[in-house]
Amino acid sequence: MQPGNGVTRRTAFFVSDRTGITCEMLGHSLLTQFEGVQFNEVTKPFIDSIDKAKALAGEIDLAAAEDGSRPLVFCTLVNADIEQALVGANALVIDCFQFFIAILEQELGVRSARVVGRSHSADNLGDYHRRIEAVNFALSHDDGISTRDLGEADIVLVGVSRSGKTPTCLYMALQYGIRTANYPLVAEDFSRNALPPQLHHLRRKLYGLTIQPERLQVVRNERRPGSRYSTLANCQFEVRAAEALLRQEGVPYIDTSRKSIEEIAATILHDTRLVRHVY
Amino acid sequence: MQPGNGVTRRTAFFVSDRTGITCEMLGHSLLTQFEGVQFNEVTKPFIDSIDKAKALAGEIDLAAAEDGSRPLVFCTLVNADIEQALVGANALVIDCFQFFIAILEQELGVRSARVVGRSHSADNLGDYHRRIEAVNFALSHDDGISTRDLGEADIVLVGVSRSGKTPTCLYMALQYGIRTANYPLVAEDFSRNALPPQLHHLRRKLYGLTIQPERLQVVRNERRPGSRYSTLANCQFEVRAAEALLRQEGVPYIDTSRKSIEEIAATILHDTRLVRHVY
Repeated sequence: MQPGNGVTRRTAFFVSDRTGITCEMLGHSLLTQFEGVQFNEVTKPFIDSIDKAKALAGEIDLAAAEDGSRPLVFCTLVNADIEQALVGANALVIDCFQFFIAILEQELGVRSARVVGRSHSADNLGDYHRRIEAVNFALSHDDGISTRDLGEADIVLVGVSRSGKTPTCLYMALQYGIRTANYPLVAEDFSRNALPPQLHHLRRKLYGLTIQPERLQVVRNERRPGSRYSTLANCQFEVRAAEALLRQEGVPYIDTSRKSIEEIAATILHDTRLVRHVY
Repeated sequence: MQPGNGVTRRTAFFVSDRTGITCEMLGHSLLTQFEGVQFNEVTKPFIDSIDKAKALAGEIDLAAAEDGSRPLVFCTLVNADIEQALVGANALVIDCFQFFIAILEQELGVRSARVVGRSHSADNLGDYHRRIEAVNFALSHDDGISTRDLGEADIVLVGVSRSGKTPTCLYMALQYGIRTANYPLVAEDFSRNALPPQLHHLRRKLYGLTIQPERLQVVRNERRPGSRYSTLANCQFEVRAAEALLRQEGVPYIDTSRKSIEEIAATILHDTRLVRHVY
């Protein structure tokens, strides 16, 4: 059944013989460009046999019948026989790799390995170890918990409570293997009008996050409703004091108010030229 | 200069007017399929003006001269004029969206919005809030720290110390907005031969992680070298006891020994049919 108001509905399947993460991200990005269509997005990882593909083809046909329009199937299947088992389904099947692999083979003058699951794997243990260590480092250096080994951080985020430090640190550690730490700016720092003493020797690794006081108030109020901590006046005071301190100390900073975690992380990496590892 | 042993070197640029994350992931996945080429991968986000694109074109030309072969440029630039400024560079420029957008426009019978930064944005505050809350939930329910509100978890991972619970929880929270918790299985549970009492009412939300004792020993030994905790005998005992307990209690589990975080998360989501949100 189609929804009303001229909005059409489509099911989109992201199909892979491995995790489906590349396929899901590319497909999702593409679909955000189409307004007026209501997409039901379904990720189908580990389709690594003809039997699984045939069963999925049945599921796709069912969605086609329910939606009244054929589904979109984005796939990254290395094995052509498995992909062939999907092509019979009532769907638009889009191979996310084929088009690019052909171009790259021609450019590089070599055949691609056509091996399943090369990315997002734990094949390279050294790389993988760095990533897990970065996550552990971020956890043990969250919110100033520990200043031990703080000098080993690649970057230390500073800012008032709830400015976005923790999710950003975890994201940079998990996605890019970057050793992140974060340290809060609190009332004591503002009255001394100086950075926390623990950070003095790390000035070149500091990066500030700031946020609009109105947005901060909303975020804090969800956490501690009606507290002094959450009042607009206190949020305004803290943000103003933190920004003044960061400017005074020459620490670069960005406003996170309307930015996603990805946007904050991408901005910081871009500004600091930190080396990222893609997993 | 080319490296020796018949290995050629290429610089690959991932260029976007926004975060570059989709482009970087797709490009990286494609390049893992080519052996015998040493890729230097460089992400260039926020190329949102013709001037920035021209400056980047200069950087690309420099890499071409240094490598002795033209770089690969993967891009997701919505603005055609900006992309045009790159096309003059000495590079193979591959538009990661164009090919698919054309197919989708034809299939859906609508024009794409061609708007920058639709994915990986904080446009939908409700969605965004769910994600941040999931990260906070994962942090406050890591390693059994708190059993308060544990019933609100979408999933609770259980397993011995260092079996991969924490990174997997954080990944599922950050990437998919899933409320994850994790709880360790310890000596006390093995001697009682029962799940921790705090988990009894959550049996249907439990999912186990296990690991080969030899791999566990390596991981633990990096953390606490020479401890009893890290001996092979202790690792063997804990893993055997944990697996027996999970089987006895009917809790599904997977071996994380050779799996990446993405692979573990994809397997769990696939098995449990938890709904994921893509950001």
